[in-house]
Amino acid sequence: MVRQGEFLSGLIAATFTPMHHDGTLNTGEIPSMVDHLVKDGIAGMYVLGSTGEGVSLTHDERCTIAEAFVNAADGRLPVIIQCGCESLAQARLLATHAQKIGADAISAVSPVYFKPDSVETLVESMSEIAAGAPDLPFYYYHIPSVTGVNLNMVEFLKLGRDRIPNLRGIKFTSLNVFEFQSCLEFAGDRFEILWGLDEMLLSGLAAGARAAVGSTYNFAAPVYHQLIKAFSEGNLKEARDQQSKSQELVRTFIPFGPRAAQKAIMSMVSSECGPTRLPVKMLCESQINDLRNNLTKIGFFDWIASTRSEG
Amino acid sequence: MVRQGEFLSGLIAATFTPMHHDGTLNTGEIPSMVDHLVKDGIAGMYVLGSTGEGVSLTHDERCTIAEAFVNAADGRLPVIIQCGCESLAQARLLATHAQKIGADAISAVSPVYFKPDSVETLVESMSEIAAGAPDLPFYYYHIPSVTGVNLNMVEFLKLGRDRIPNLRGIKFTSLNVFEFQSCLEFAGDRFEILWGLDEMLLSGLAAGARAAVGSTYNFAAPVYHQLIKAFSEGNLKEARDQQSKSQELVRTFIPFGPRAAQKAIMSMVSSECGPTRLPVKMLCESQINDLRNNLTKIGFFDWIASTRSEG
Amino acid sequence: MVRQGEFLSGLIAATFTPMHHDGTLNTGEIPSMVDHLVKDGIAGMYVLGSTGEGVSLTHDERCTIAEAFVNAADGRLPVIIQCGCESLAQARLLATHAQKIGADAISAVSPVYFKPDSVETLVESMSEIAAGAPDLPFYYYHIPSVTGVNLNMVEFLKLGRDRIPNLRGIKFTSLNVFEFQSCLEFAGDRFEILWGLDEMLLSGLAAGARAAVGSTYNFAAPVYHQLIKAFSEGNLKEARDQQSKSQELVRTFIPFGPRAAQKAIMSMVSSECGPTRLPVKMLCESQINDLRNNLTKIGFFDWIASTRSEG
Amino acid sequence: MVRQGEFLSGLIAATFTPMHHDGTLNTGEIPSMVDHLVKDGIAGMYVLGSTGEGVSLTHDERCTIAEAFVNAADGRLPVIIQCGCESLAQARLLATHAQKIGADAISAVSPVYFKPDSVETLVESMSEIAAGAPDLPFYYYHIPSVTGVNLNMVEFLKLGRDRIPNLRGIKFTSLNVFEFQSCLEFAGDRFEILWGLDEMLLSGLAAGARAAVGSTYNFAAPVYHQLIKAFSEGNLKEARDQQSKSQELVRTFIPFGPRAAQKAIMSMVSSECGPTRLPVKMLCESQINDLRNNLTKIGFFDWIASTRSEG
Repeated sequence: MVRQGEFLSGLIAATFTPMHHDGTLNTGEIPSMVDHLVKDGIAGMYVLGSTGEGVSLTHDERCTIAEAFVNAADGRLPVIIQCGCESLAQARLLATHAQKIGADAISAVSPVYFKPDSVETLVESMSEIAAGAPDLPFYYYHIPSVTGVNLNMVEFLKLGRDRIPNLRGIKFTSLNVFEFQSCLEFAGDRFEILWGLDEMLLSGLAAGARAAVGSTYNFAAPVYHQLIKAFSEGNLKEARDQQSKSQELVRTFIPFGPRAAQKAIMSMVSSECGPTRLPVKMLCESQINDLRNNLTKIGFFDWIASTRSEG
Repeated sequence: MVRQGEFLSGLIAATFTPMHHDGTLNTGEIPSMVDHLVKDGIAGMYVLGSTGEGVSLTHDERCTIAEAFVNAADGRLPVIIQCGCESLAQARLLATHAQKIGADAISAVSPVYFKPDSVETLVESMSEIAAGAPDLPFYYYHIPSVTGVNLNMVEFLKLGRDRIPNLRGIKFTSLNVFEFQSCLEFAGDRFEILWGLDEMLLSGLAAGARAAVGSTYNFAAPVYHQLIKAFSEGNLKEARDQQSKSQELVRTFIPFGPRAAQKAIMSMVSSECGPTRLPVKMLCESQINDLRNNLTKIGFFDWIASTRSEG
Repeated sequence: MVRQGEFLSGLIAATFTPMHHDGTLNTGEIPSMVDHLVKDGIAGMYVLGSTGEGVSLTHDERCTIAEAFVNAADGRLPVIIQCGCESLAQARLLATHAQKIGADAISAVSPVYFKPDSVETLVESMSEIAAGAPDLPFYYYHIPSVTGVNLNMVEFLKLGRDRIPNLRGIKFTSLNVFEFQSCLEFAGDRFEILWGLDEMLLSGLAAGARAAVGSTYNFAAPVYHQLIKAFSEGNLKEARDQQSKSQELVRTFIPFGPRAAQKAIMSMVSSECGPTRLPVKMLCESQINDLRNNLTKIGFFDWIASTRSEG
Repeated sequence: MVRQGEFLSGLIAATFTPMHHDGTLNTGEIPSMVDHLVKDGIAGMYVLGSTGEGVSLTHDERCTIAEAFVNAADGRLPVIIQCGCESLAQARLLATHAQKIGADAISAVSPVYFKPDSVETLVESMSEIAAGAPDLPFYYYHIPSVTGVNLNMVEFLKLGRDRIPNLRGIKFTSLNVFEFQSCLEFAGDRFEILWGLDEMLLSGLAAGARAAVGSTYNFAAPVYHQLIKAFSEGNLKEARDQQSKSQELVRTFIPFGPRAAQKAIMSMVSSECGPTRLPVKMLCESQINDLRNNLTKIGFFDWIASTRSEG
């Protein structure tokens, strides 16, 4: 479990959900995925978030995937299960399940169809989910570009401190570094604010981030490890160069559809993740080939190979 | 069932989901709710849509509510079950359940968290749900102000005609009367386009609407029946006056939060619907009193009483 | 002048600003444009609005165009000059100029770069412009899809009644027929609410509109005259059919860019209007040919020819 | 002039436009404003941007203000004149004027009412303005939160390099540090990318910014000088603490309306700037007192006093 007083530190992989080509779950792939992350020095897993297509799975499928990751992790690295969905009651069932199977923490995104109209309503809503797993730390998943819920996160922490006993922090996925730093300051040693934008990790670190959650950490961890190392040694120039690689990577796959493209990259690089599920449209074969060629051109496969052998 | 060649006509009530004060379902209230709608001349029910807080319920609760309405209707008026949710697979299970329990039609809103990026992806996504209830007509629920999915509905009908065998039409909840009329023209006798904005019913009728789905039809049907009657007799002045009443009603309750306020109105006027569920915040007692007073001032309770006795 | 107690009625053409191919003004074309509108039964002109690219012209050019239209009208039909721009002070100068040259009314859009934060600020802002032409009626130009300023128009009329002595009404260019009808009711005989969406004229009429301002009235007036005639005779079916033509026209030119395409249509049908000005990009020759072919296919040129000879 | 090969470095103040209480210009205040900036170590002035309410002034007023700042600067620090407005032709006149009076550079925001529909149209539009001052460097002013124009800035630089001979760079006012760093990399020594968010200066510096344009540099320069010094010495902790002060300052004045509040702060701290102009509403006396009290509470007046004496 993520204990009070202990802090996540380093890279948390937002895991993909591996699927067969017919769209059914492929849990058999999960143990090797997790081994790979452990080998890559990943410090935790964030399961069934946007990257994991959590909301696109049925309730039963979410339970299955949560269990598979917790089992595969086997205590080697903490597992955070994202439980949010439109129904707070359904999300609470997922939270309870996560606690039962031995997850280390839970997290939840806001409902999107009906949007909380104030910080207070958001806190009350998240409180219902968090109460489903009272023994686990709870992280609110803030991602306004997707949810359209863009309430003040410092106010959320202030109110949440009193009303959500197991509130542990925020997964902060927003461009607003101003707000992120404000949250960090308010948080002190009481809360954790996890940085959520891989392509702006340097901004997060400069603002004081200790840990970051992201999808590209699944397949490009070496680049980010070098970034963090350079930053901690005060070598801004080198940190910026590594961030630049990360940005080139992101610019390369985004035109193909970020979620589907990254599942395709996973299959090229480490684990067979299969297709995305509708409404996220998967790449066709020719797109996958184009993507591979473009990644080759920017040197992506060398980056992760050479840095690995260096590591 | 809504049969090919038969058309919905008149007012379809988007039903509320009655709840106890502790937030659990109150299915016991449903039979009298339905009796009341039948007595009010309502031509159909649209269950578990936005008004019914469908997405805020668990899967099991949605099944329970669907069944209660189908049973209470008992063939007296057609029941459309809204099955949409973030997970297409979960929605498909709901569709299959709706068919099994004898619903007359299904409908689904688009996923919102991951938004379909094209008409084609939307059609493919809806096709997955519709396939869960192949014997029932399927209506796509278009409500861009809530979903942020604002794809061209004429194109949707064109593509959907070929790829969704049981596509029956659209529940069209958008201000864009231009697009609505275009859909109606394309639809001909093949599809139904249900008008979805109560406060602009007159616009819908002028554009050619035959049937309309809405929340205020639950408690203010007499006003709308007079509107439709006046319109069909060519008495635009009278139709406009009735629409004006409807607009005054909407302007009166909207400041209290449209969904929670309407549940409160239901409890004042006909059936005890109880509170809304988070993330939709319920009115407190003093707000309910203010709402009642404001409704009295505009004459709302007289409108629905006098027109009833006239009817 | 548009006098208190007198009301605009029928179609008001939102005029185009004719330009030479080098982008300079072509005022020589204006007299024949106006003659054409008079012959087409147009009831007024709205000059230098969105259609007229008012904000894209320099101050001096706006004065030149205003004068040319007022002179060409020569009292045959009222001329409303749109004076709005980012600087209220500059807009006020334009208002004063409009009064001096004998325009019949002024109008102004809200500033867009700095958006008024409340109805009160909007009223105060418009008051500054209206005060520049105290003898002329003033119409606020409400077009939230362009300005992003979407404040409550009934509240605007309430506050404006007291603070803008020459407030005459609103040019209402929004899909929200609910709000439009509410404004009309509040307006009574005190204010005029001009309908602004050609492709939804029928919605406007059903809601009670007396006059409408639009760009397609410049080149497709016969269709709309038939629509209005049918509506006033209670022939909704025919009104809808004419609206349908209008919608097909709009659907045909919109893919080419609405503003540039309509200037091209003007040049095909009546007056040589030349190109649009950047940032509105003009069609190239091949696009103009495609547009002409598509218009031929839907029968547009026949509609306006045959109905003319019928008229 | 800002010469090719020379780079702006440090803090560029986005200057306020001083006004009398009746709203007319107060140019008499400008010389002491500029002296104050010079004394504060400010490296340049950005005149008539959002802070300077450029678009709210008439053409003649903009010329007057531009001249006053150029004269007051008297070569001591470079002056960039923001010329953008809805009319590209009018903006071009302002550009020509700026060159004539000896400004060092020009800049322009995109038109907002009609938004360029592509990078190409934006480049063509900016090219028209830049051509009005061919001897001066031109900076595009990118501020999508205000303009709604959010086109890819790397693509803008690529296309602009060929089509705008005097293109010098971008004033980049956006949260997207990812895009900012991408622009910096593309820019190399050919272009300058000026950072535009005071409350996220540290993000900008970490990404490689050399110079930053902002409004709070007018009255809180000492805080930012310490931030930059700490950053350049590799003292991230101290840099973050100074950024934190800046953020507390911003959080304090934003609830009062950022633009009006900052003019009030200017009047408290250095130069009498008077009110803002509509549509930006000015603070009333009691709000100004509240603001002053809140600033006192956070220690703002001490920060800028103590650091000054330290400086």
